[in-house]
Amino acid sequence: MSQFSKTFQRFTSTYTSKSIPSKAHHHVPIPDSAFPKGYLLNGIHAGVKKKPDVLDVGVILSQRPASVAACFTRNAFKAAPVIVSQEVLEKGGGRARGIVVNSGCANAVTGTQGMQDAWAMVRATDVLLEEPPSDGHSETLVMSTGVIGQTLPIAKILAGIKSLSTSQLGSGFDAWERAAQAFMTTDTFPKLRARTFTIRGKEFRLAGMDKGAGMIHPDMGPPSTPAQLHATLLGCILTDASVSPRSLQTALTYAVDRSFNSISVDGDMSTNDTIIVMANGAAAEGLPEIDEASDREAYEVFKEELTSFAADLAKLVVRDGEGATKFVTISVEGAANYADAHKVASRISTSALVKTALFGEDANWGRILAATGSIPLSTPLDPTRVSVSFVPIDGTAPLPLLVNGEPEKVDEARASQIIGQEDLEIRVELGLGAESAKYWTCDFSYEYVRINGDYRT
Amino acid sequence: MSQFSKTFQRFTSTYTSKSIPSKAHHHVPIPDSAFPKGYLLNGIHAGVKKKPDVLDVGVILSQRPASVAACFTRNAFKAAPVIVSQEVLEKGGGRARGIVVNSGCANAVTGTQGMQDAWAMVRATDVLLEEPPSDGHSETLVMSTGVIGQTLPIAKILAGIKSLSTSQLGSGFDAWERAAQAFMTTDTFPKLRARTFTIRGKEFRLAGMDKGAGMIHPDMGPPSTPAQLHATLLGCILTDASVSPRSLQTALTYAVDRSFNSISVDGDMSTNDTIIVMANGAAAEGLPEIDEASDREAYEVFKEELTSFAADLAKLVVRDGEGATKFVTISVEGAANYADAHKVASRISTSALVKTALFGEDANWGRILAATGSIPLSTPLDPTRVSVSFVPIDGTAPLPLLVNGEPEKVDEARASQIIGQEDLEIRVELGLGAESAKYWTCDFSYEYVRINGDYRT
Repeated sequence: MSQFSKTFQRFTSTYTSKSIPSKAHHHVPIPDSAFPKGYLLNGIHAGVKKKPDVLDVGVILSQRPASVAACFTRNAFKAAPVIVSQEVLEKGGGRARGIVVNSGCANAVTGTQGMQDAWAMVRATDVLLEEPPSDGHSETLVMSTGVIGQTLPIAKILAGIKSLSTSQLGSGFDAWERAAQAFMTTDTFPKLRARTFTIRGKEFRLAGMDKGAGMIHPDMGPPSTPAQLHATLLGCILTDASVSPRSLQTALTYAVDRSFNSISVDGDMSTNDTIIVMANGAAAEGLPEIDEASDREAYEVFKEELTSFAADLAKLVVRDGEGATKFVTISVEGAANYADAHKVASRISTSALVKTALFGEDANWGRILAATGSIPLSTPLDPTRVSVSFVPIDGTAPLPLLVNGEPEKVDEARASQIIGQEDLEIRVELGLGAESAKYWTCDFSYEYVRINGDYRT
Repeated sequence: MSQFSKTFQRFTSTYTSKSIPSKAHHHVPIPDSAFPKGYLLNGIHAGVKKKPDVLDVGVILSQRPASVAACFTRNAFKAAPVIVSQEVLEKGGGRARGIVVNSGCANAVTGTQGMQDAWAMVRATDVLLEEPPSDGHSETLVMSTGVIGQTLPIAKILAGIKSLSTSQLGSGFDAWERAAQAFMTTDTFPKLRARTFTIRGKEFRLAGMDKGAGMIHPDMGPPSTPAQLHATLLGCILTDASVSPRSLQTALTYAVDRSFNSISVDGDMSTNDTIIVMANGAAAEGLPEIDEASDREAYEVFKEELTSFAADLAKLVVRDGEGATKFVTISVEGAANYADAHKVASRISTSALVKTALFGEDANWGRILAATGSIPLSTPLDPTRVSVSFVPIDGTAPLPLLVNGEPEKVDEARASQIIGQEDLEIRVELGLGAESAKYWTCDFSYEYVRINGDYRT
């Protein structure tokens, strides 16, 4: 009996940890000219959050009619803003001009009051549009993030939106940055990116912002899916290209599967997850709308740009995951099909044992293997064909840990060197086919436990 | 930009936590007379573990021919002892007499050497049987637990088994306790229980032991299932009733679904999970074997006793989960079918956000709801029918948090009082039918991160 009484001596009540790396440098200034044309934005402190000067309401307006598409969480518990946004999207036939967002309160599981509040935010933002819709329909989509089960301080929010007359909206970096800040909850930096792309020599711009931190394991589908949500991943992507609503939705659905639906911070799916894309054609004067049916080549270029840009935004969420000290790419290759590859990558990404080993910088490939083997696949695994390696991001040679099911004699010093970096890739080769998938995940630290053991207080 | 630079001030490198409650009192002495007759056991220090005097090899022998049944992990990566045990079980037609176990090394992903070592353990134990099998077949099942990817120190283990001549095996509490101790890895107490049950006035005994701590989210099936494993849940249950091999397997499969397959510590499925049951009939002299086909009534009594006893053993694993400060029962009621109820209970049990909220004693029912809604069910959820409550274990009234989809005005003091207890039940009513399922889980603490961020070193 002395064996287990001794064991208790290891329980102390203080845990000392390496510190969480600062992530502030991932927020970078962007030249005003890099942002898509024809959008006005701002972010303000309306008073949802207690701390003064912390931005909590953001508004994004297109100065022209725009196509819009969205993906929403598949959670069975839809937050009010999700239900309302889906309705606006449907009734508008894929056309809308406004986006309003608040942080600090998710307006989820808030019953009738929550629905009224979400509609009130939409209507207050409609009024800010250059020619407000007059026939009773709305052109604004709404997003909320924060605590579940509390109603919004709606009077404060409406007063805040009202104060945003056109003169207080902007189109330069400052305005985009303030809007991005209004999305933040436990995020430690605003997530804002822009890029330029070219179709047949004509230049267009994409800009986007998102937020995450916790309750991040999205599974979002287009609104035709029984979309149901209560989520903490919010994002929007704006472009000055012109794209038909139908092709915008198809491209977004494809992009979201390979970006936001391929990240995990803690494996928990939110009730509010929403990604909105808007295309206002401000740089496409005189050009036809990009559409898959009429010009497949232009559509493919746009779809690939959107997917790659969405992945950039999604990775920022993982980079800033609650308590994260590591940014880890999980590459699953040699699968019989994409769904199998995606499933395995998702399972490894959510394994508490893999994630704590990453935090501890322990090259424990056995846990990677156990996670890999723990889910049923359409084509069953053959252990003798599975290989696992660590891939350093500095371009030096990968380190094989397991080759065709047999453990390698691992150079532990080299393994520690690779896993000691902030960025790391874990590659799993299944040996069953030619399909692959990537997932992006982070580690599991004391800080994650602290943040989430003490979130509401 | 000042917003997020300020945010970084909250990152410190020291975390102070309430201490992990001592669990030593869950190990209790058991009178010698409570153990099933006809078994001899011991546990020794063979040297798999470095610390002297820590037991790491255990042996359990039936003095009579016995029926045996087992459930193995469904992980695609089977550890060598799992493959070997399955073969012994099959070739023996459900008859066996010996069990040998080691802790400290899982003998998983160890290739040809691993298979040889597992067979060597089996054969060395066969020799200890009263009339060793002589026709080349084996009557011993083998289990291993510990680090993955390292080969066993097989010479030490074989020498240890050899030293266990009959005179050093016992049948009283001391012997059972030493065998239970040999199962332990990060467990803080040996898990050993016994009970008596009666069929038609005749008394029989059940005793069992198990181990867990981490990599605990078993999904085990009978060997006819493509059973595949690499696990850290090991257990065995011994009885002196007489049961046919076929009915013993049927009863065990039913029991495991409602016990070991309904617990989670960290959501990770092991490659070695194994539960073995042995029935030697030592107290059934002159009575026929219990069999479902010939005597359904006796079979049902046995099955229910086995299920309830297996649940007792399974709960001990959760109680002693790595870093656990809480023991939480997740009850899902009103489901359309058992599979849906079990799925929802499993999802809530593995939610990192629910588990960290439990650690932080935060009555954050929104996270329970988000987890509930995050998986597809055969009968889709209707949010307006879902209710959630906390059920205190002291018999006082449950505290409703959500009723038919509407949040209650919660008495936070009362909620804190309930969640402040070590034991707690979370009840989720789906309002879709009459089926229910229970899961047992624990919280997610700094200590879990510490143990698993630093396991191999």
